[in-house]
Order: sequence, then C-alpha cells, then structure tokens
Amino acid sequence: MNAEIISVGTEILLGDILNSNAQFLAQQFAELGIPHYFQTVVGDNPERLKRAIAIASDRANLIVFTGGLGPTPDDLTTETIADFFQTPLVEKPEIIEDIQQKFAQRGRMMTDNNRKQALIPEGANILCNAIGSAPGMIWQPRANLTILTFPGVPTEMKYMWREVAVPYLKSQGWGKDIIVSRTLRFWGISESALAEKVAPFFDLQNPTVAPYANYGEVKLRISAKAASAEAAQALITPIEQQLSEIAGIDQYGADQDTLASVVGDLLKSRHETLSVAESCTGGGLGQMLTRVSGSSAYFWGGIISYDNSVKEKMLGVDPSAIAEQGAVSAIVAEQMAMGVRTQLNTTWGVSITGVAGPEGGTDAKPVGLVYIGLANAEGATSQPYRFGDRGREWVRQVSACSALDQLRRRLLNKS
Amino acid sequence: MNAEIISVGTEILLGDILNSNAQFLAQQFAELGIPHYFQTVVGDNPERLKRAIAIASDRANLIVFTGGLGPTPDDLTTETIADFFQTPLVEKPEIIEDIQQKFAQRGRMMTDNNRKQALIPEGANILCNAIGSAPGMIWQPRANLTILTFPGVPTEMKYMWREVAVPYLKSQGWGKDIIVSRTLRFWGISESALAEKVAPFFDLQNPTVAPYANYGEVKLRISAKAASAEAAQALITPIEQQLSEIAGIDQYGADQDTLASVVGDLLKSRHETLSVAESCTGGGLGQMLTRVSGSSAYFWGGIISYDNSVKEKMLGVDPSAIAEQGAVSAIVAEQMAMGVRTQLNTTWGVSITGVAGPEGGTDAKPVGLVYIGLANAEGATSQPYRFGDRGREWVRQVSACSALDQLRRRLLNKS
Repeated sequence: MNAEIISVGTEILLGDILNSNAQFLAQQFAELGIPHYFQTVVGDNPERLKRAIAIASDRANLIVFTGGLGPTPDDLTTETIADFFQTPLVEKPEIIEDIQQKFAQRGRMMTDNNRKQALIPEGANILCNAIGSAPGMIWQPRANLTILTFPGVPTEMKYMWREVAVPYLKSQGWGKDIIVSRTLRFWGISESALAEKVAPFFDLQNPTVAPYANYGEVKLRISAKAASAEAAQALITPIEQQLSEIAGIDQYGADQDTLASVVGDLLKSRHETLSVAESCTGGGLGQMLTRVSGSSAYFWGGIISYDNSVKEKMLGVDPSAIAEQGAVSAIVAEQMAMGVRTQLNTTWGVSITGVAGPEGGTDAKPVGLVYIGLANAEGATSQPYRFGDRGREWVRQVSACSALDQLRRRLLNKS
Repeated sequence: MNAEIISVGTEILLGDILNSNAQFLAQQFAELGIPHYFQTVVGDNPERLKRAIAIASDRANLIVFTGGLGPTPDDLTTETIADFFQTPLVEKPEIIEDIQQKFAQRGRMMTDNNRKQALIPEGANILCNAIGSAPGMIWQPRANLTILTFPGVPTEMKYMWREVAVPYLKSQGWGKDIIVSRTLRFWGISESALAEKVAPFFDLQNPTVAPYANYGEVKLRISAKAASAEAAQALITPIEQQLSEIAGIDQYGADQDTLASVVGDLLKSRHETLSVAESCTGGGLGQMLTRVSGSSAYFWGGIISYDNSVKEKMLGVDPSAIAEQGAVSAIVAEQMAMGVRTQLNTTWGVSITGVAGPEGGTDAKPVGLVYIGLANAEGATSQPYRFGDRGREWVRQVSACSALDQLRRRLLNKS
C-alpha cells in the first residue's frame, strides 16, 4: 500500500508558484504512516496528464491529485482522469445546488463555467469542499486503486484533506501504524543556543526530536510512531516534560499555540485588558492579537500612529521628545504605551516604534532598531531590539512577536 | 527538445523541506524558453530512482537532477545514473584536489567519504561547484539526451546553474527562445465571470493567456515566446491592451502591484492622505498599507476599534446607533470612517466592521457580513459585503482588500 501525489498545474511548471501542497500532503502521509515514494508535477495538458496517471496507477494504490478542478477551460483534471479510465462523467445536481447557494451567499450569480464543476466520473463520490466552489472526488476506478482529487488552493485543499479525506482513508484501513507529533514552541532563544541545551535528545530514535526555526521562532518537533495515538503520546509525554524543564520561560507554548493566544489566555485568567500603539508595524500587532477568535474578551483595540502627528494628538506623545530623541526612541515608545493605555482605558498598553526599512536607517538608528514599550498602572518601561536589516516584513513580523513575548514574560513575572 | 526535473531526496517525500529547487529551475526553463512538462520527486533509493530515470529518459532530452551528491552513504544519485546507463565510474583526480584545497582553506582534513564525490561516469564532464564540495556532472549518455546533476543545497545549485549550466546549454543550442510573462491583476470579479468575458483569449497559442485565482484575487497571465525580450513584449502588449479594455475598472494592476500600492500611488498623485478605522480586521488593513515602503507619505495611521467603547470614545460613534443597528451596520461603518478621518485629519477615512467568525454570526448578520465605510469632506458612504463563512482569516483578508478596492474605485471616480 503506497501513495503518490500528482500536482496538476502549468503555473507550477512555469515556476510561478511553489508546490507547497505537495509538502503538506507529504507531511500528512508521514504522520499517517502511509508510504510515499514518488511525486509528479504535470501541466494542464490532457495527454501528458494521462501519461502521468498511467505511470502512477501502475505503481501506487492511492493517487492524490491537486489542481485543475476550477471552472475555467484549462481545468481538466476530473475529465482527464475519467477519460483515462474510460468512464463517463455524470452531473451531480447536489454540487450545482451547493455552488448556487455559495454564490448567492456572496451576492453572485453562478456562471455556465461552474456547471462543469458538477461533473464527476460515474461511480465516484463527491469530496465536499465546504469553503470553496470546486469540489473534489473520491473514486475507486478499479480494485486496489483509490483516487482523491483536490483543488489547488491550499486553504481549500488542506481543509478538505483534514475534514473529509483523512477520516475516509482511516475508514479504509490506511494509516494503521500512526505517527504522532508534538511541536514545542520557543521565543527569545536562538536555534543554536536551544540546540546546545537539548543536543542529547537529537539522538533519540522513537520518539525523534528535531529543531526548526523561522521568523525568529524556534520549534522542537517530537515525533513518535506507534500502533495507537495513545501509545505514541505515551512515548512523547516524558520527553516533552524534560525538554520543557530545560527550556523554561523560553518555551511559550506547543502545537497550535501562538504568542497571541498564549498572551490572551494569560490576560483572560487575570481578567486584564490590552491595547496597542503601533508605528512601524502599522497594525500588524493588532492583527496578530485579533487572529485569535474571542480576543475581544481582553483586546480592546489600539492606535496606529504611523505619522508623528498621530503620536502626538492621539497618544499624547511629547513633541519635544520626538524632536530631541526621535520617533524611534525609548521615551517615545514608553509615552506611546502609556498614551494608548490611558486613552483606551486598559490594564496594559503595548507599543512598537522602529525602523523597518529599507529606507530610513542611520548610523545611530539602523534598519532593524525597534523599541517596544510596556505600560500598566505602575508606569511604562521599554526595551530596544536590534533585529538587523533582514527585510521590511521580517522586521515588522519579529517586532510584533517580540512585543507579545515581552508582555508574556512580564505577565509571568519573569522579566 | 524538452527538459525534466528529477529531485532526489527522502527529506522531500517526508515533507521536511519544500522543493524550492524545482521552482527555481522551472523559472529558469521558462526564461530560457526550454519546454518543461514533468517534474518528479523520488527518495534516496536506487531502484526507485532508476525507475524515475527510465521514465524521464524516455520522454525528455534534458534531465536535471538535484540532490544526492553528498559524501554520505545515502547520496546515490551519481552512481545510480551510471548504473542505469551501464557505465563504469571513474575517479577524477582534479575533483579530489579541489576538495582537498577547499577543506584546507577551512582548516579541515578531507575524509574518505569525500572520495566518492570524485567518482563520475566514464565520459562525463565535471560540473564545477565553486562554492561547495560536491561537484555535479554534465553527461550525454546517449544521443539526444543530456544529464545535469546538482547538489540539493539551493545556494550551490543556483550558483552552478547560472555560472556553468546556462552557458553550456546555450552553447548546445538550448534556450534560443525566451518566454516573457505579464500578470494582470483583478479585484471585484469572480474567476469564472472574468473567464467568460475573455474566453476567446484562452485559445491563443503565442502569447498564451491563463487565469488564476486565490484569496478573492483573480489574475490573467500572458506568456509570450520569442527570440528576444523585445519581440516577446511586442506580442504581449496588444493582448494586454485588449484584456485591460474588456476588464475595465476590475483590473487594478499588473505584476508586482498590490491593491495597497495602487491606492498609495493614486493618493500620492492627488496629494491626499488616508486613515483607517478597523474592527474585525484588527489592524490588518493598516498592516497591508504599511507593507508598502514609503507609505508614510499618504498613510497617517488609524484606530483599531475592536471594543465598542473604543468606537464610541475614540471615533465618536453614536452609542444609540450601536444599540439600535448593532456594531456591524452601515451607520456604524460610516460613523467610524468619518470619525477616524476627523480625528486624524486626513483626506480620506476608511472603515471596516463585520463578523469574521467563527463565532458571532446570526441569521440577520451571518459570518462573512462586512460593512466597509468611506468618508471624505463630502461625507460618508458604506457598502455591505457578504463574503460567506470561509474561515476567519479569509474573511479578514478579503475585507481589507475590498476596503482598498472600494477606495481605489472611488479615487478613479467609477463608484
């Protein structure tokens, strides 16, 4: 029993998009313990797609297709698969109803193009797409061969995979020996520094421990293989406890946790509220906080003080402080944090002011210099960070995360 | 004459790494005008790699391998290729010298493992690796078939490709034609609706026109093949003009444009300024605007009025309006836009208030219902949008883009 991925899309062959769907599916196969030996990318071309199907169906029992399910003429995946297995297409009225409903919801009319999305091979089942118009299919064109098709849009593909495909595959006996992973999340420590602390764990065989890092965040992934989720979890738990003990405050959470969700939980438990004052991040910190559903319980809002006039008028920053110290300075960060806290009447005020670049850097205040302010009833403090000139979006992202981490440590009374 | 990519590496099949090398090579093929129909990923397994070589050598004239050239036992690409074409490996003393020199420079001794990196098939040429230890090869195992191998390390692979492989391929008559592409960007029209308007263009052969869509944005990609960039551009220009004419206001830009950069250019040219009032997007609109370097010229800031108290106190929204119409309503959107414009003293005020979900939806105000307000000296207007329940982040992202698009159309006096 082994699986194979066929990614359909000329845009991949042109290098327009990175084939991240294949990586996601590969990770999923690994987690489910489904062997996976080949991946193929082919363009929106029926003849070549048929050649890819011929090869894959000859060596795999499960073929997962992504892409080519849209309404346009170059979306040919479904009809080409049907044609290869010499099976007629049938129109599924329930798909048409579903598309009509979704379009109506968005105040749009369904076009004739969408009708073709309702055609699937005779005998195939619909693989529902709850969040997009293009459904996929689950089909066994012959014994020992299962075909799944997904749209190329990653959000839709991932949702359909998790919600529909995984339960189906398990019901069919795939993924018996399962792999369970747990990702520990860290902020404020470098990958190499953490790796040194936990080096011996990298030699473990089951569970395995592997480090990852991106955008300033460091992760340790613990992966255990066992016959059941419970057995795998039993292998993970003691290792996780040891790693957490070693890492201490630098670990902010695990798995689906984000710095924003962790800070939110801390604020909720303390019945405290938060507001933000953002300059160089321009709203990115507020967006991060409100990504958490239910954040309205503790996040009241903020002021994007991109222009100095807004810092002065809306946050009460002293114009002479800006004139003397500059907008990117400790005192301005502190006055911004205090100002937003007072204006919005929250327990905490957090502020960010810095040089995101690429322009605006000086010898004294280079690109990547960011001040993060923190205010509560006792007053305001600030910390300077030097993130370096690693790109505007990198500096902005890491600044917002560092602001959340600074508040997190303060709430845990460790900084 | 067509090329094919074989990416070798179990780490890709496990989903540990994204296959960015394939995207780079695909872009290079496109720029060089080298037809490219298939990509294959296979693990570090000689038997399966041979099967991949058999298939590729049967349908391609140029096979580019990445990965599996290292010194470790699981690096098997070179010997497996030689084995498939039944050609003995020979040791190249110049490779050994080169590796020894590089190691000496870093104060390290060459290990026996590295000796195997000096073995290439009889008759093959060395593809020099100036920046790493693992060289690749250029080999014609038979007529009309050229094989190039590269290490998997992207920096080394890209360097070797540009410095050695491209000049070689051109000397061999590859890449005479080049392909130039132009991407037209649209907002406010569905992929299927746009596709119907421009359907005849999809039948063009050179240039070709193909539609793409994600996160509410629709794109048309025009790709032309010609002997020179100028000749290709000459093929693209008239088609672009016709498509732009048909699409009209729904086209907001092309290539690197974003809704934020286009709106920014419009504001700059009019010497006007902008502020934002955000509820459900929580700062996402401000972040989008400030992603554009230099946006401080026209974007002054905003107020994140997540909590109703902030809408009332900072934006002057009438509490009775919230009580009677709800925070997600036309009047509140209009008062938010007017309020932030007045407070921050800008030409324009844009506001967003909606139900991002997953919680908070009602029959009257379902998840995905968003009001976008727009205010200037003449007063405030608003528009309702029904984005549907497609996930919190999707609704937030599309809301921010729609707010920018609403302002764009207003600035163009078309709405």
